[in-house]
Amino acid sequence: MRSLAPFLLALALSPTGAHALTPAEIVAAAPQSAWTDIPPEDLLVMDFGDGKRLVIQLAPDFSQAHVANIRRLAAAHWWDDTSIYRVQDNYVVQWGDRTEKKPLPANAAKTLPEDYSIVRKAVENRITTMPSQDSYASATGFLDGWPVAMNADTLWPVHCYGMVGAGRNLAPDAGNGAELYAVIGHAPRHLDRNIALVGRVIEGIENFSSLPRGTETLGMYGPNQTATPIQSVRLASEMPGETRPHFQMLDTRSRTFADYARARENRKDEFFNLPAGGADICNIPVPIRR
Amino acid sequence: MRSLAPFLLALALSPTGAHALTPAEIVAAAPQSAWTDIPPEDLLVMDFGDGKRLVIQLAPDFSQAHVANIRRLAAAHWWDDTSIYRVQDNYVVQWGDRTEKKPLPANAAKTLPEDYSIVRKAVENRITTMPSQDSYASATGFLDGWPVAMNADTLWPVHCYGMVGAGRNLAPDAGNGAELYAVIGHAPRHLDRNIALVGRVIEGIENFSSLPRGTETLGMYGPNQTATPIQSVRLASEMPGETRPHFQMLDTRSRTFADYARARENRKDEFFNLPAGGADICNIPVPIRR
Repeated sequence: MRSLAPFLLALALSPTGAHALTPAEIVAAAPQSAWTDIPPEDLLVMDFGDGKRLVIQLAPDFSQAHVANIRRLAAAHWWDDTSIYRVQDNYVVQWGDRTEKKPLPANAAKTLPEDYSIVRKAVENRITTMPSQDSYASATGFLDGWPVAMNADTLWPVHCYGMVGAGRNLAPDAGNGAELYAVIGHAPRHLDRNIALVGRVIEGIENFSSLPRGTETLGMYGPNQTATPIQSVRLASEMPGETRPHFQMLDTRSRTFADYARARENRKDEFFNLPAGGADICNIPVPIRR
Repeated sequence: MRSLAPFLLALALSPTGAHALTPAEIVAAAPQSAWTDIPPEDLLVMDFGDGKRLVIQLAPDFSQAHVANIRRLAAAHWWDDTSIYRVQDNYVVQWGDRTEKKPLPANAAKTLPEDYSIVRKAVENRITTMPSQDSYASATGFLDGWPVAMNADTLWPVHCYGMVGAGRNLAPDAGNGAELYAVIGHAPRHLDRNIALVGRVIEGIENFSSLPRGTETLGMYGPNQTATPIQSVRLASEMPGETRPHFQMLDTRSRTFADYARARENRKDEFFNLPAGGADICNIPVPIRR
């Protein structure tokens, strides 16, 4: 069949001659122009005091009031000497001040309005839509490097592994960004549009995911467990130049990303017998590099 | 709207009067007839020697030759004094004999044929189909308590969190069940039909998921890391009656399971503002109890 020729050619050109490029190989071959710098004001650097570090990228396209509040909390060093007090298996890690009594900085909002989706029309030309069907929305894709789901009118970020959200009490409370959680299991997509997503872990997720699970309800740490102390949380923009980490993400509108996503949907490298022919949005993690 | 009446009635009958039953509340109210005993020959009990235990339920509907071989390996106490030597974040934990040189018992197969799906027609009347669209298959559902995906002709188990599969080398090798892995992250559905799934962890998954991540390629443990020793792996059917654990799973063809799945798809308990209206197959874990 003639229509297979380009595919066969790709096979012939692959490094071993025996299989198509892996997603990682495609990313490794990306031109510099396919990478986008992540601004230092979008990076939260969490240090644990034992040499371990975790970095979160904020998502300023969404939950803008939450992201602004989080930047104020970080600037006030509010998370210094707080802790990770909840680890629920196949669900989330949560940190902040468990008592919820630590005073917030004067310039930080105590409560914020619900703001869980944005108008799709306003960002239509920046969306990269993915072809696979989704169990939760009429379409999925990426907006400026973030995994999103959408219907005809609105668009919202989705709870993939590593995504960070703002804990809240019962609605209409939408949290203030002081108590944050990160997903450490199968994507809990039922939380989409029910909680404000504010970012994602881009380095050191294993410092969350390998923590002992909490023994109390909802994975809260029990009286015989030690909450993991957080030494400091800083915006990279506040850190001196020589110690400031730099990250880039693959532009989700680049040709390389399209090739990468297609390879994730159709694994043809030598281990795979049968390409899936699709991928859910959370199985196409956006490549990030230091 | 008249069609909402049953739903409003359900709300009125819920315990607080303010919200619908949660999935957990529905399961807690299940009649005894909705629960099915898991046979002891389908239970693998892994002890770590420090009081920690993990239990795997074998899936005899699928990969039958692999499951039979695993029972032979367990009966020969083959996994005693092996280890967990691979922990890859958001992917898998793998255990067995890292050297792959430990001799197999005489009655165990060294290699097994590929057998990654079954004929759908043969089991059609036992399938409970779920309504949500799937990114990987034309339909999903449950067969005898196991999450499955299917197309018109075939049906196969899927790589949800906690599912256990048989490591293999390059095809046509399909492994022999000695080197096993469990999913500890977002469902790697691209592995479906590419590896033999043989069961799932039903107790103690945190003894896998909270292990330190391996520092080498693919999460293999490095020279400065200590592989977690496995003291013993036994079939429950081989354990004396008084120490033998008993488990039941919710019958996926029961009315309770249908109600539970619907509640997972449409969370209406008081925390949720907006029910998702669907759920991917891996977000409907089959309830299991001791």
